[in-house]
Amino acid sequence: MPDPTPTNRQLHLNAFLMSTGHHEASWRLPDSDPYANTDVRHFQRLAQTAERGKFDSIFFADSPVLFTDVGRRPSGTLEPTVLLTAIAVATDKIGVIATASTTYNDPFNLARRFASVDHVSGGRAGWNVVTTAGPEAAKNFGLDDQPAHHERYERAAEFLEVAKELWDSWEDDAALGDKEAGIWGDNAKVHAINHVGRHFRVKGPLNVPRSPQGHPLIVQAGSSEDGKNFAARHAEAVFTAQQTLADGQDFYRDLKARTAALGRNPEEIKILPGIVPVIGATEAEALAHERQLDELIRPEYARLQLAKTLRVPPETLRLDAELPAELPDEDEIEGAKSRYTLIVNLARRERLTVRQLIGRLGGGRGHRTFTGTPEQVADAIVDWFDHGAADGFNIMPPALPSGLDTFVDQVVPLLQRRGLFRTEYTGSTLREHYGLPRPAGRWQVVQREAVSA
Amino acid sequence: MPDPTPTNRQLHLNAFLMSTGHHEASWRLPDSDPYANTDVRHFQRLAQTAERGKFDSIFFADSPVLFTDVGRRPSGTLEPTVLLTAIAVATDKIGVIATASTTYNDPFNLARRFASVDHVSGGRAGWNVVTTAGPEAAKNFGLDDQPAHHERYERAAEFLEVAKELWDSWEDDAALGDKEAGIWGDNAKVHAINHVGRHFRVKGPLNVPRSPQGHPLIVQAGSSEDGKNFAARHAEAVFTAQQTLADGQDFYRDLKARTAALGRNPEEIKILPGIVPVIGATEAEALAHERQLDELIRPEYARLQLAKTLRVPPETLRLDAELPAELPDEDEIEGAKSRYTLIVNLARRERLTVRQLIGRLGGGRGHRTFTGTPEQVADAIVDWFDHGAADGFNIMPPALPSGLDTFVDQVVPLLQRRGLFRTEYTGSTLREHYGLPRPAGRWQVVQREAVSA
Repeated sequence: MPDPTPTNRQLHLNAFLMSTGHHEASWRLPDSDPYANTDVRHFQRLAQTAERGKFDSIFFADSPVLFTDVGRRPSGTLEPTVLLTAIAVATDKIGVIATASTTYNDPFNLARRFASVDHVSGGRAGWNVVTTAGPEAAKNFGLDDQPAHHERYERAAEFLEVAKELWDSWEDDAALGDKEAGIWGDNAKVHAINHVGRHFRVKGPLNVPRSPQGHPLIVQAGSSEDGKNFAARHAEAVFTAQQTLADGQDFYRDLKARTAALGRNPEEIKILPGIVPVIGATEAEALAHERQLDELIRPEYARLQLAKTLRVPPETLRLDAELPAELPDEDEIEGAKSRYTLIVNLARRERLTVRQLIGRLGGGRGHRTFTGTPEQVADAIVDWFDHGAADGFNIMPPALPSGLDTFVDQVVPLLQRRGLFRTEYTGSTLREHYGLPRPAGRWQVVQREAVSA
Repeated sequence: MPDPTPTNRQLHLNAFLMSTGHHEASWRLPDSDPYANTDVRHFQRLAQTAERGKFDSIFFADSPVLFTDVGRRPSGTLEPTVLLTAIAVATDKIGVIATASTTYNDPFNLARRFASVDHVSGGRAGWNVVTTAGPEAAKNFGLDDQPAHHERYERAAEFLEVAKELWDSWEDDAALGDKEAGIWGDNAKVHAINHVGRHFRVKGPLNVPRSPQGHPLIVQAGSSEDGKNFAARHAEAVFTAQQTLADGQDFYRDLKARTAALGRNPEEIKILPGIVPVIGATEAEALAHERQLDELIRPEYARLQLAKTLRVPPETLRLDAELPAELPDEDEIEGAKSRYTLIVNLARRERLTVRQLIGRLGGGRGHRTFTGTPEQVADAIVDWFDHGAADGFNIMPPALPSGLDTFVDQVVPLLQRRGLFRTEYTGSTLREHYGLPRPAGRWQVVQREAVSA
């Protein structure tokens, strides 16, 4: 159990990786490899760097669709469970988390893949559960449009229920390996699940023995009402995008309360806001690096993307004017609601022009950009951590590999010196890094209850 | 292009891997690790051994279901594309082939996974296309029973068509990486596929750039009429189970003719019968090893399995009698037709008792078992290769790792000395090992035709 007293509280750090970095123009930097998006060695080296920095985990976003304009930035991504596996076997300790869609997968196949990655990694796998917004992905799976927001979340809830039943379908001690008797496994400890629900009928059992962590760490990243309720029920870690300390505190308090209200221990959901650290030896150097990146953005790409996200015709977005006064209401958005709201609020609050907004979004798709010296970045992290807005951070380097190297070499030691971050791994599974318990299988729970009754 | 003259013809060798080996009792041998089925290091070491032996490839069978009796042998298997990835990054040259079902996958997701493995491996991925027989798997995917045999093959044909369209959706030179102009990719060279068919509607393009091999090697392994026609149209390598030289020659001649009749070059489909080599320093030692393995079989498991395959009540199979005279006709079998026929023919031809048949099947599930010295095994291989029954072999060691070590150390050098097998890899992709061309993308073909018209 993690110790909740503030003196012992430890930060958790996740490295959110993305080809040449989160800044959309990062691939144009002189040192960037524009083909990094399909180079498995690139990702293995990044994970090794994060492991050198004692990060809890690395993470990949994903959607089963090619976003249309390949001119803008490196496009096309290796399938995340494949990529996690390649990274798992090139590292020893760090957790590996990938995104996968409950709308466009079958629970049997996906539960099996994540259980397999958990075996291959020795208990270091995590799954960021998403419902996949947008009509484009739907069209790759026989649909004309995405299912409605609420419908996607209802399917996600049942999907996760099925996945957990499958992960528990083998008891931990089902494999006997009794050579003498010639009995490999105990049939009484491997259970059909016979799930029958609105979205799925799945007999089971899974065809993979229970994995080292029992099941992979469950991560969630949407901040809509449906998303937050889903997180409160299922998530063990949450990636979120908050721009101000006050918003961060509100989100943190709200989600911990929703989690407790469902009878879960709020310590067992870790909240990690995203931060894009633009780091320089001096503040001026950091600002110059940020400017260098922003000047490499081609605004015509970004304007089209923004128009799509906001569901407005591109010609209504004038680069040197603010957003139009009339925009769709959040309730009309069937896609990524929380991202929509975040962008509109950011633009309105800071009265940004479209060009300025594009610069801010280009740096990290709406996450909080913090530009400064290593000390300033460390201070910003500690500020949120100490003031009830974070259990840790989702670190989104604007350029890779350089941005991760700098963070590991210059920011991590400061956090370690302040006694807030591990100097060595003390556990060997992803759950152990995050201070989360290994779930008991449901059959073990049934037995314990029968004994105590 | 491979040289078709007999003097230059080279054997192809694939290692068909399976936890502790193909013999169902292999896990009970003193040296076997009964938990090898979930040990990624075990499989990486096997692949490294096969690579030391200059094998073309390694291969895994698969079905998305747990076959019911976990008492019998190591049960539960890591998901094959995950396993291939772990092996690909631990090897340099050897091809990696996995089985995946067209009945229980979506084309977009599966095409993406295999393209990803092809990227990660630098062009060494292969996909054994199966339709997945049996009602058990169907019940993990919302169905009460498997779709009819013909229906499964119709879906498979459309699935493969979609997969190939997706793999071709990026032209080879679509990624420009033009930092100066700020244009990463050429939108005109990335194509929606807009597939609309009876089973699938898929817009595309794929969200992975075209992979090193263009697309993974297509492998097929069923020998029913539907299976052979599918192979003739799509397969570049075929794994088959033939017990006698005459049967092997018939199959080889038939499949090459079907391939040529469809306008394909019959050199571009490689036929690899399976062989279970039980090897000893002397014939007596080899026979003793075979006996040791067979005596470890518990016949009660095997009898139930056999009854299921033959669709008869278990009590009709008496261990010391031949098969019942009355058995279902092959046409009534909706499942694995070719395996059914093979078993019945083997039992009738050799007038085997059920106990003897179980011994033969336990050794390699109906594949040809060859027991002898390294010289005798090499002779048997050369005999089929020289007499029009094989382009190479699917090597199925009865026990692992020992059976693969022995084959690599003692049989491979004999084949090399006879000038029939490579002593070093000359290519670096799986297609190059098999002497198969890299497919031109369909958009390149369109352009070439436009130019020549």
